Amino acid sequence: MTDPRFEDGLLPVVVVDAWTREVLMVAYTNRESLDLTLKTGFAHYYSRSRRKIWRKGEESGHFQRVIRILVDCDEDTLLYEVEQEGVACHTGHRSCFFRTLDGEEIAPRVLDPKEMYGRGKGNRRGG
Amino acid sequence: MTDPRFEDGLLPVVVVDAWTREVLMVAYTNRESLDLTLKTGFAHYYSRSRRKIWRKGEESGHFQRVIRILVDCDEDTLLYEVEQEGVACHTGHRSCFFRTLDGEEIAPRVLDPKEMYGRGKGNRRGG
Repeated sequence: MTDPRFEDGLLPVVVVDAWTREVLMVAYTNRESLDLTLKTGFAHYYSRSRRKIWRKGEESGHFQRVIRILVDCDEDTLLYEVEQEGVACHTGHRSCFFRTLDGEEIAPRVLDPKEMYGRGKGNRRGG
Repeated sequence: MTDPRFEDGLLPVVVVDAWTREVLMVAYTNRESLDLTLKTGFAHYYSRSRRKIWRKGEESGHFQRVIRILVDCDEDTLLYEVEQEGVACHTGHRSCFFRTLDGEEIAPRVLDPKEMYGRGKGNRRGG
């Protein structure tokens, strides 16, 4: 068993589609949200802006079933290989990385964000 | 043009192989190392432990030619698609993500780290 180094209490998590290898998003986890992920099999993260743990998809229904968790050489970054329900990005794009640094969109919006939310309470960012 | 939000001066960078899509590593950049990356076409990062900018491969010769840079929806994380010379990890593995959280190695060491370094000055971590 590795022993991830939760510096400042948080680790970044790179989230990739387990089958296509596409990088879907980057989020942060603390020990509690990692434990919830391991226990439930669904990705939980720590929201730095809301200062709380959230289950990915709790607002949008776009859950992430975690297939495998990797840790990097320094044990300060995690990689989740997931089955993504729907889309990962709150904008309606499959991945949060849908633009180049120059601003060119390289991937289409596949869902209307207005129809992704509003079925629950709380903040919609990344939900 | 997007305007990345350099909170605390640093942004995380997910580095993927431009052709295989494999996640190779995660590093950090500030505005100066991003500018150096754009200007030279080779990945430069900011080392949090050494508190300095470094060019990936400056010790090992394992440079990263940057093919494309993506930015995420919140503009607080970058993704570099690179052509990786040699290996990305200082351990001699192709990717820094070569173990599961349980400690199982899922990818072979392809180079002997003893033979990767020692040709220059400085710290060998990630070099």
